[in-house]
Amino acid sequence: MIVVMKKDATPRQIEDVAARLRHFGFDIHLSAGVERTVIGAIGDKKPAVLENIEAMPGVERIVPILHPFKLAGREFKPEPTVVQVGDVRVGSDEFVVMAGPCAVESEEQVVETARQVKAAGARILRGGAYKPRTSPYSFQGLAEEGLKLLRLAREETGLPIVTEVLSPKDVELVAEYADILQIGARNMQNFSLLREVAVTRKPVLLKRGLANTVEEWLMAAEYILSGGNYQVMLCERGIRTFETATRNTLDLNAVPVVKELSHLPIIVDPSHGTGKRQYVPAMSRAACAAGADGLIIEVHPRPEEALSDGPQSLTPAQFSQLMQELAAVAAAVGRRMASPAPVKW
Amino acid sequence: MIVVMKKDATPRQIEDVAARLRHFGFDIHLSAGVERTVIGAIGDKKPAVLENIEAMPGVERIVPILHPFKLAGREFKPEPTVVQVGDVRVGSDEFVVMAGPCAVESEEQVVETARQVKAAGARILRGGAYKPRTSPYSFQGLAEEGLKLLRLAREETGLPIVTEVLSPKDVELVAEYADILQIGARNMQNFSLLREVAVTRKPVLLKRGLANTVEEWLMAAEYILSGGNYQVMLCERGIRTFETATRNTLDLNAVPVVKELSHLPIIVDPSHGTGKRQYVPAMSRAACAAGADGLIIEVHPRPEEALSDGPQSLTPAQFSQLMQELAAVAAAVGRRMASPAPVKW
Amino acid sequence: MIVVMKKDATPRQIEDVAARLRHFGFDIHLSAGVERTVIGAIGDKKPAVLENIEAMPGVERIVPILHPFKLAGREFKPEPTVVQVGDVRVGSDEFVVMAGPCAVESEEQVVETARQVKAAGARILRGGAYKPRTSPYSFQGLAEEGLKLLRLAREETGLPIVTEVLSPKDVELVAEYADILQIGARNMQNFSLLREVAVTRKPVLLKRGLANTVEEWLMAAEYILSGGNYQVMLCERGIRTFETATRNTLDLNAVPVVKELSHLPIIVDPSHGTGKRQYVPAMSRAACAAGADGLIIEVHPRPEEALSDGPQSLTPAQFSQLMQELAAVAAAVGRRMASPAPVKW
Amino acid sequence: MIVVMKKDATPRQIEDVAARLRHFGFDIHLSAGVERTVIGAIGDKKPAVLENIEAMPGVERIVPILHPFKLAGREFKPEPTVVQVGDVRVGSDEFVVMAGPCAVESEEQVVETARQVKAAGARILRGGAYKPRTSPYSFQGLAEEGLKLLRLAREETGLPIVTEVLSPKDVELVAEYADILQIGARNMQNFSLLREVAVTRKPVLLKRGLANTVEEWLMAAEYILSGGNYQVMLCERGIRTFETATRNTLDLNAVPVVKELSHLPIIVDPSHGTGKRQYVPAMSRAACAAGADGLIIEVHPRPEEALSDGPQSLTPAQFSQLMQELAAVAAAVGRRMASPAPVKW
Repeated sequence: MIVVMKKDATPRQIEDVAARLRHFGFDIHLSAGVERTVIGAIGDKKPAVLENIEAMPGVERIVPILHPFKLAGREFKPEPTVVQVGDVRVGSDEFVVMAGPCAVESEEQVVETARQVKAAGARILRGGAYKPRTSPYSFQGLAEEGLKLLRLAREETGLPIVTEVLSPKDVELVAEYADILQIGARNMQNFSLLREVAVTRKPVLLKRGLANTVEEWLMAAEYILSGGNYQVMLCERGIRTFETATRNTLDLNAVPVVKELSHLPIIVDPSHGTGKRQYVPAMSRAACAAGADGLIIEVHPRPEEALSDGPQSLTPAQFSQLMQELAAVAAAVGRRMASPAPVKW
Repeated sequence: MIVVMKKDATPRQIEDVAARLRHFGFDIHLSAGVERTVIGAIGDKKPAVLENIEAMPGVERIVPILHPFKLAGREFKPEPTVVQVGDVRVGSDEFVVMAGPCAVESEEQVVETARQVKAAGARILRGGAYKPRTSPYSFQGLAEEGLKLLRLAREETGLPIVTEVLSPKDVELVAEYADILQIGARNMQNFSLLREVAVTRKPVLLKRGLANTVEEWLMAAEYILSGGNYQVMLCERGIRTFETATRNTLDLNAVPVVKELSHLPIIVDPSHGTGKRQYVPAMSRAACAAGADGLIIEVHPRPEEALSDGPQSLTPAQFSQLMQELAAVAAAVGRRMASPAPVKW
Repeated sequence: MIVVMKKDATPRQIEDVAARLRHFGFDIHLSAGVERTVIGAIGDKKPAVLENIEAMPGVERIVPILHPFKLAGREFKPEPTVVQVGDVRVGSDEFVVMAGPCAVESEEQVVETARQVKAAGARILRGGAYKPRTSPYSFQGLAEEGLKLLRLAREETGLPIVTEVLSPKDVELVAEYADILQIGARNMQNFSLLREVAVTRKPVLLKRGLANTVEEWLMAAEYILSGGNYQVMLCERGIRTFETATRNTLDLNAVPVVKELSHLPIIVDPSHGTGKRQYVPAMSRAACAAGADGLIIEVHPRPEEALSDGPQSLTPAQFSQLMQELAAVAAAVGRRMASPAPVKW
Repeated sequence: MIVVMKKDATPRQIEDVAARLRHFGFDIHLSAGVERTVIGAIGDKKPAVLENIEAMPGVERIVPILHPFKLAGREFKPEPTVVQVGDVRVGSDEFVVMAGPCAVESEEQVVETARQVKAAGARILRGGAYKPRTSPYSFQGLAEEGLKLLRLAREETGLPIVTEVLSPKDVELVAEYADILQIGARNMQNFSLLREVAVTRKPVLLKRGLANTVEEWLMAAEYILSGGNYQVMLCERGIRTFETATRNTLDLNAVPVVKELSHLPIIVDPSHGTGKRQYVPAMSRAACAAGADGLIIEVHPRPEEALSDGPQSLTPAQFSQLMQELAAVAAAVGRRMASPAPVKW
């Protein structure tokens, strides 16, 4: 850590800061520049201890040198993490597509969609049983009934299930049904929920918050990792900006940034990222070309009847067409896609 | 609601949309313009039903005419809501200042601070026992031990307590100690937590999310109100923008916007809003002049030793000075401030 | 246009608005809803006339139905525009790469770079002679001397030149040397400059402003098009958001959005868009997969000695490697890339 | 400046960076930490020289210690700058209100408005003769004819005039008529325009760009100051964020931030900052309480007939009411407001 003192800091203030740092066990490097004195603190301490040096008299600001995350960082673990879900290996050379409806609505809807996305090459089924809705008057999901329908769709198709959990008190129940626990964007910094999913040791899909930096996202992953659950996948799903042509701004820059800073796999959600189905194919191909490890895409047999997020859902036919385009792009960047497996009817 | 059809929408598509709207019980107004057909849906339906009209073939976009909130809106309840906490009436002609440390750290710290802020004119004591921290390695609060210390400070000073609750499972416990339950910015859309605090019927201080619009904020309040708890205070605490000179961008525009759209009181948090103590006095005065109903300010006897948010905490002396400045501004805009009450020692 | 009246609008206010709209030559559709009266104005008028209806008593807001741009829109011209620059056709099935140094620094630097990027397959040479710099103390470019060096590089390699023009008074001079006039992000709404480049009838590369929506960007293009110059290429170069891991947030969503709304070609600048060379290859591949018509990339023989933007410049070797990756992605999405042409030595 | 080396930087790379810094005339402080080597460069050099150190092999990032501005900074000039315009002293203890129509439309409109705002206590008349409009089809201003009408209004009322200049080629002409040259938000980084207004030695009102940090704004001021013109006033007019309830997000935090970093006066524009007249009074009072040196407010005798920005213009009666509220707030924060002067009829 570097402490930049104010121009008019007194020798006494400089010495007080140095003494405090030494007290915490740091070695001190003091550089008296022409306009500022800068104090370097050298040692292997947790940044949290130091935060309030900035509140000491005479201090202008502090500059951290190291990233605040440890377990999530590439320096801690240089080789990529592969998360195994059934026979699917997320983070390997396979480009993995997860697909399914936004919300589970009925047996027919979820089983039909599961068969169709599997036929098109999807490897994991998505579907929400607990829905975080902006309005208390909107459809809030089928809850455990929805989980049962997802389990049925898994039995019918063999596809593992990813589904969202909203509250610490539901974690145990959702973990009984789900293969992957999804943490939604609005809960990225719901720290009690993060601690709870860590306990399950189940794979977690951690969505990026709408207004969170990559660094904060990795710190959220750190909560899960430091709780002993190393099966974490990150999911970029769009950030909030001034642009209104898309519902959110899908930030594909996050793909190479995460790959540089972290060993965790990264999945991209172009459905929420753009909010409009006509932009999903282009952004899906782009995510693959940028080096993402997979996609999570909303597919609904009849989007105009969907109880949630219809405008951003692909039809099964559109999804099937996209999967063919993706196969070409994946090959161009050296990634493998599973051949569409025959569906049990 | 208005449905704008695409330029090349077919008569059949237009009729399908109209039929769907009629099926939902709406009256239809059809305007065939030069370049677009526009369908007006007239009736008193919940917007959620209509959302997926946008996914129908031939639809370009839908334009809601009404705000999505009901109970939180001024049209529902024109007169301002006053939230009563002990003898403090938030939303009345009194300009109410809440103050105290970011985190409860020790008996001495919290009782000392409570006495000092009361002496300076604060009417409610703030202090965190459960702390949402970006890093799992940072101080996470004293939990129930912290709540007990807050209760002690209340006994010593008579000041009601506002403190944050982070998880649905803690709501019952926190509600036993607190006079006001605070929902933090990161939990503004933690809908299970919102439903849980509604059940308590305790006054709630609902902070605005870092990336949430005023409309989404009022929808979060709607969760609490529709759960039967009408004692909701809003709290503006800064939004996330590109500017880095401040930790967040305190959005004082939200004050007149909320006053126009809603009957709920609005409190401003200049400490988190700016993140730097030197900007707190200016923004506090500005919030008062803009018409806010009160402030929530971080005060710590020794900010440089604070376990959390030291750089944005005022010292008791700075707070006392600020309270005098605020008294002048409040008077200029026709608001009353309580005279500093004598403290029991 | 739709005019939404306030809940308490009087019949007189409604009639006044209707009368004003009729006066402007519109047909009126009046829908008296349960909670609001909505007035539809039908006719083929320019939106500017109507703007201030919003200021009339009783009006809550106005909702435009049509996009404000005309000549830049796909409804005006459904087929894609191809901009011809020498034998390069931007917007055709060819994926066009422009490359070169941020700033022209010396004959050796610009000619050496031109040869190297041509050898790797670039089709157009970029280089700045006039540099918009945040600081008045930074290198401001070689001005006309820089333009002469660019001309020399064109003579040596045959590559057409794209270079920025900063001020209306320089347009004539820059147009004598340049094949494409670049309007920088900071000048996207410098309307006198836009009008001036329209007069030249030269191809224009119009960069998106850091905080401008796609709609505003197309309105800036409209200034050039309505001035009689139809040779406009758009260039996405990153927008400003809260994220600091990248210098800007390259918004690839703009690619499919522009393709939907406009017929103009779109080029992506991953160098400014990310600000860090290590992210340029991933975002270049992604831009191609998203359907962009080309790229503009900074290449410098010795980035650490560059007078401007060294950290985001690729070395010629890195650029050459990237061009091979791009060839594979372009093929996967059905685009052609020119074979690297032999350089004249 | 601090150079942070990568974890795996080689001794040779570290030595190369150190050698380069020494070559530029810096003293070097080398701190070999546990995880990173950090190099401090000490000396009084312009930051621009150092920028590309970041592009050297083995460098992770550079951290500037000093602000990039000099002449605009409080360290260079601790006492506040007062800009004298006629008998008005902006930056003194007087709280100065500038008011008038967005655009000059006719003799009657501008003279009538001038008289009314003067009667209410305004000290400077605003009005645009050259209008930067998003659409090429919108009213672009009366140009020199508008300047003549402003001069007429000054003759009638004695109020000095502030008006915008859009292009370097118009600076000389506008400077003949105007008392203060306004640089609009879209031109904050139009560096040729900044250099041109510096030459005039006329007072300049420099608006903050929609997506510019305070630091970049002060660097824009530095262009004017370093050109020899010290009469610079800053004007906060709202930044672009995700919030849509207001047209822009007026950032009052900028007031205390600018007061800390700079000696230049700061004016607030609540009309453009909010875009809606109903929010102008609250934000005007807030700006005054935050410590701004003045306001610039749009007033139009008949906003619903305004050719530009009607929805954000106050009527003369609303303005007059606001001026009385402001007088009370100004007094509360120790600022003086001129008594409304009698108008010549």
